[in-house]
Amino acid sequence: MVQVRDPESLTELSMAIFTAAGATHENAQGVTASLIGANLAGHDSHGVIRIPSYIADINNGRLMPANVPFVTHETPTSAIIDGNSTFGQVGARLTATIAARKAKAVGIAAASAFRCHHTGRIGEWAELGAAQGLITFAAASGAHGPYQVAPFGGKTKALGTNPFAWGIPRMNGQPPILLDYATSGGAQGKLMVARARKEPVPEGWLLDKHGNPTTDVEEFYDGGTLLPFAGHKGYAMSVIVELLAVGLSGGQAVPEGERGSCLFVACIDPGTFRATDDYRETVENIAGRLKRQPPNEGVDEILLPGEPESRSRAERTEKGIPLPDATWDAIAAVANRLGVPLG
Amino acid sequence: MVQVRDPESLTELSMAIFTAAGATHENAQGVTASLIGANLAGHDSHGVIRIPSYIADINNGRLMPANVPFVTHETPTSAIIDGNSTFGQVGARLTATIAARKAKAVGIAAASAFRCHHTGRIGEWAELGAAQGLITFAAASGAHGPYQVAPFGGKTKALGTNPFAWGIPRMNGQPPILLDYATSGGAQGKLMVARARKEPVPEGWLLDKHGNPTTDVEEFYDGGTLLPFAGHKGYAMSVIVELLAVGLSGGQAVPEGERGSCLFVACIDPGTFRATDDYRETVENIAGRLKRQPPNEGVDEILLPGEPESRSRAERTEKGIPLPDATWDAIAAVANRLGVPLG
Repeated sequence: MVQVRDPESLTELSMAIFTAAGATHENAQGVTASLIGANLAGHDSHGVIRIPSYIADINNGRLMPANVPFVTHETPTSAIIDGNSTFGQVGARLTATIAARKAKAVGIAAASAFRCHHTGRIGEWAELGAAQGLITFAAASGAHGPYQVAPFGGKTKALGTNPFAWGIPRMNGQPPILLDYATSGGAQGKLMVARARKEPVPEGWLLDKHGNPTTDVEEFYDGGTLLPFAGHKGYAMSVIVELLAVGLSGGQAVPEGERGSCLFVACIDPGTFRATDDYRETVENIAGRLKRQPPNEGVDEILLPGEPESRSRAERTEKGIPLPDATWDAIAAVANRLGVPLG
Repeated sequence: MVQVRDPESLTELSMAIFTAAGATHENAQGVTASLIGANLAGHDSHGVIRIPSYIADINNGRLMPANVPFVTHETPTSAIIDGNSTFGQVGARLTATIAARKAKAVGIAAASAFRCHHTGRIGEWAELGAAQGLITFAAASGAHGPYQVAPFGGKTKALGTNPFAWGIPRMNGQPPILLDYATSGGAQGKLMVARARKEPVPEGWLLDKHGNPTTDVEEFYDGGTLLPFAGHKGYAMSVIVELLAVGLSGGQAVPEGERGSCLFVACIDPGTFRATDDYRETVENIAGRLKRQPPNEGVDEILLPGEPESRSRAERTEKGIPLPDATWDAIAAVANRLGVPLG
């Protein structure tokens, strides 16, 4: 039911598929790196499972595989990027790269993007800045939906899953401390998994079409709605994510038919506050205190935020990426239609 | 059981008490404005109920009522403030004011403070920037605790309640959209209320001293621990708050016996991205969409984040601040000891 593919051959296949579908080499490389990177991090819902839907969007004109994102406005501390309807990860990478470059120059800076296709795993953009020694915040939202999440106290779809991320650089090349999650109770990917397995989802994730709480994922697909995580707390954060990503990019000006994903990335150079080594020493002190805590019964150890991702990355880089047959078959079918050999 | 006091006379009383205890006029004014402001916003746990404990800390040398916080380091985008062990709200106000001033000059800026006494209601510092038209983020944590919250998967106290806030300016002088909450499942103030009423607290807030989930607040006071809100999601945000507030201020260098509260405030001028009016129009579009959603059964209307606070402020400004007799009696006792007439 699950087959294991090595990252290198998956990368080659993804590159070949996107190139055959009209992507420039650079765009194919950009989106492929993000998809494989999501699989390596263990976020399979943002990995190569997306290839068939991206190709479908290229075919129906919703994704422009050869377009290039570009800067529309900038100051020493800020920039706005037009994602130009190409792969969202390509526009997102430009956005995060510019935010990081400016922060290294002036200490703190941010960039925001509009007219993006799916911007992928939000944690990737926090990791991008953290890998350059910068504290990095990222938030993604759609300018015109799709809406899947009810506001706190409501029962209608009025918010996106609006994910956000924080990345904190560590000492000695260790992977960053990473927060990366949606502001909905459950991610879409987890709903799909629960549906396939005919399992209930946790309480607090869903309302049925009448506004009643339910743990039956079929009720969600029958006109129900997702809830924000943690009630009013997740609701408030969801609103903030949209006000940052859509608000600062000006994405609402893009017509509804065009790609509406928006992104906000902010970077802080700790060195603008303190000596970088001193900052990182504080990070290690805090990390060490947490790691030293005894785990509760049934728990192996205390994990830092981001450790699940970095452990998955280490394991899957070595042992390969497990893909359900259905995921592989859908990718293989797309490859066949485009005349791309499966290798 | 509850008496209603008007904000003006409470302000006079608080000023007189702190001045009699040795505070400068400016410090007494600063801390008083914050305490009364917290009551007006409906956050009574951060209001005048704190007066007796602040006076106790002045008496035992843990709070220096005449000290003045000062800047120890700054760049065009950043600053570090030594809270100088005076009222934390005074140092916090300076921190937020400097972050806002720098952001108005360069677009995006931040400031961080260490050696603070209790920095008060975190939302106040997000509101301070938002009132100047700036998107504002604030986060507070202790350099050396006190720790009350277990890490995700743990059962020991290893994190503070680490609150954070976001403030978003709106059009036409409307109060900001405001996120303001602790990263623990329940705030300390709510535990005290549940204890007084002998009521259970919601599931997911507490572990007993053995690490078992409990809804009995007495188990918390008998060696139990608070949990982060929303499991790994709240845990991750708690860690980020500490890494920002303690990490960027360098608060760990302050000896454990001194005041250890740390604060981080970042401000973004939306005008550095887009025309300010355009940004605010997007904010109103999003707010309007949320307000138009039908409420679920048993709910009166959809509230925006921050509406509970702004409604409380409007109502209490007009009708007065309700104080439990116990709170009033404790304040009155302190006033009597300092020879301050109750008016």
